[in-house]
Amino acid sequence: MLLLASSERDHLCVVLVSPRNPLNIGAAARAMNNFGFARLRVVNPYELAFREARSAVGASEVLRRAGEFAGVAEAVADCQLVIGTTAARNRQLRQPLRALPDGARLIRSRLGSSRMALLFGPEKRGLSNEDLSHCHWLLRIPTCQEHGSMNLGQAVAVCLYDLVRTRGVPPRTAKMRLASAAQVETITLRLFEALRVSGYVNPQSPASTEAKLRRLVRRLAIPAADTDTWFGIFRQILWKLGKP
Amino acid sequence: MLLLASSERDHLCVVLVSPRNPLNIGAAARAMNNFGFARLRVVNPYELAFREARSAVGASEVLRRAGEFAGVAEAVADCQLVIGTTAARNRQLRQPLRALPDGARLIRSRLGSSRMALLFGPEKRGLSNEDLSHCHWLLRIPTCQEHGSMNLGQAVAVCLYDLVRTRGVPPRTAKMRLASAAQVETITLRLFEALRVSGYVNPQSPASTEAKLRRLVRRLAIPAADTDTWFGIFRQILWKLGKP
Repeated sequence: MLLLASSERDHLCVVLVSPRNPLNIGAAARAMNNFGFARLRVVNPYELAFREARSAVGASEVLRRAGEFAGVAEAVADCQLVIGTTAARNRQLRQPLRALPDGARLIRSRLGSSRMALLFGPEKRGLSNEDLSHCHWLLRIPTCQEHGSMNLGQAVAVCLYDLVRTRGVPPRTAKMRLASAAQVETITLRLFEALRVSGYVNPQSPASTEAKLRRLVRRLAIPAADTDTWFGIFRQILWKLGKP
Repeated sequence: MLLLASSERDHLCVVLVSPRNPLNIGAAARAMNNFGFARLRVVNPYELAFREARSAVGASEVLRRAGEFAGVAEAVADCQLVIGTTAARNRQLRQPLRALPDGARLIRSRLGSSRMALLFGPEKRGLSNEDLSHCHWLLRIPTCQEHGSMNLGQAVAVCLYDLVRTRGVPPRTAKMRLASAAQVETITLRLFEALRVSGYVNPQSPASTEAKLRRLVRRLAIPAADTDTWFGIFRQILWKLGKP
């Protein structure tokens, strides 16, 4: 399902700038695992948080191998393209801003040839102007105006998901094959018989009830694979009603 | 940026089944806020977790208004379409499975005409087979094979993001309005009763037959306008079988 080659995914570093909450660091690493990204870098973390996240039960290889850097410049030094994430509130942005669906497309198109860093800011404030100044362009997850700011771990998950989600995934034709007309008619006739025996059918106008039932059953979309089960169900009810 | 009309977003309920961690409940609510969804329902939560999540500083309106339900059937009773999320590991799935990009497209195309429930299972185990038997189809986030299972809050964020991410407003297909989950469940229970009386149900394993029937009936597309007719049909058969 994951359509970026693993060599391409290895070209992307996720960079957490000054994260403060060990749970968020762990959640970011987990999302990276979920979507097949391995390179995590942490800039100037709240030291206790980073240590706690790494020593947590179940901490992943991604987290144990995460690089630690003193500043953004050092963390992105080997990358050709640096992209900052932002909620873009009340801030004059000086770089091009792309919404995630477009931005992800652009990232994918470049991952084969460039090393990239995707930056996420600290929980409360997001990336500073100084952090942003290292970025070539900025990425915004299209959230509501009033509730723009995302949780750090969730933001990482959403961005990485969009990088791997794409088109190429063959549309799973989940259309079930439906029962044939003959099978539907068999079910209709058994239902009609059960209702006749039960006194549901007006003996003065059985044909009109039969036509009504025929339309009723045809408004159901009965999967072909279920017809034997339905046959068995009506066989049993008819048997109990004394009409084997 | 959010292209689903707010009336459409109001047609979608996010249902958390037996969540245990207050942080995950809070994270799910936050993601709903981020992407403009307001209807949260919680089934049989770990009581302390739910209380803690609701009383947390900054708990949102979404969380304060969340409905609490004893079971999945009650939580989805007013919905026409019920979709379960699954990591689809080591499990024989009995319903159609769609990857998120395709599934989200389908959800969007139906949100104008149907009320829907999107179910998320408990943190460790995911949705049970009994939970899944209430679903019309299943949704899978396309994660890596080896690290398939996502954090609950992140899974909610990714699913809701994909629902709002796209540009084109989907073509509104003039679908029939389908029966609600409560109506479908009533039909299921009457069919089960008729079969129990008829000797179709193995008394050693009634629950497994019930789950099987639940899935069978949900594979039908029962129009809302036909439910009274189906109620009447089963009432008559049950009466004749001596179970008024």
